[in-house]
Amino acid sequence: MKVEHIGIAVRNCQDANQLFEKLLGAGPYKAEKVESEAVNTSFFHVGNTKIELLESTSENSAIAKFIEKKGEGIHHIAFEVADIYAEMERLRNEGFQLLNETPKRGADNKLVCFIHPKTANGVLVELCQEIKE
Amino acid sequence: MKVEHIGIAVRNCQDANQLFEKLLGAGPYKAEKVESEAVNTSFFHVGNTKIELLESTSENSAIAKFIEKKGEGIHHIAFEVADIYAEMERLRNEGFQLLNETPKRGADNKLVCFIHPKTANGVLVELCQEIKE
Repeated sequence: MKVEHIGIAVRNCQDANQLFEKLLGAGPYKAEKVESEAVNTSFFHVGNTKIELLESTSENSAIAKFIEKKGEGIHHIAFEVADIYAEMERLRNEGFQLLNETPKRGADNKLVCFIHPKTANGVLVELCQEIKE
Repeated sequence: MKVEHIGIAVRNCQDANQLFEKLLGAGPYKAEKVESEAVNTSFFHVGNTKIELLESTSENSAIAKFIEKKGEGIHHIAFEVADIYAEMERLRNEGFQLLNETPKRGADNKLVCFIHPKTANGVLVELCQEIKE
């Protein structure tokens, strides 16, 4: 496992891009709209991991609800795994509650699965695996 | 810059150690009590970064207040910098509010400085630099 990225919920991606460029010393290297999650994202390299900013495009999205409840801030940690199906099975057997029973397509050409924060000390955990086509 | 670690606030480090061992597939490689911050910590390697679990040892600690307000969960992101004094000066000039005006001694043999979340999209940012003695 490695930390593939850290997801941060923001109200406005453009404003946050400027702020994170100041913080990290370099701007985002890509932006991507993910229709299925109703988010605009932008990505920053930091060492060999990434920061992903997430802006909601719908008031019903998970990001909109997160911000409404908790405000802007760190939203999830994504761990890269070699075999997402095997890892989902392993973690299910360890007692973690998966938020999707089969991997779904996420941002950045990845298959993803989320673990319910209530079974992971309040941490929303994403498992991800790059799609090789 | 690199992500040196991700800090997670937990109610009970021993319980959380077990849970994160299941999640990450390996146990903590060290534990450390940080009197100045009133926390017990434990550290996990994940790729070339770390997860730091933080358990409060006092009801007045920053971690106790965080959990009271937001519940357990991701608390901060720590970025390793080469020169913490220069980086603090640079970020102060960029408009970030520093929570300590001079670096202080943190866990894991580091000089640390925190940036106020209200100036960083709700993210508590730690800058850290290893103390070389």
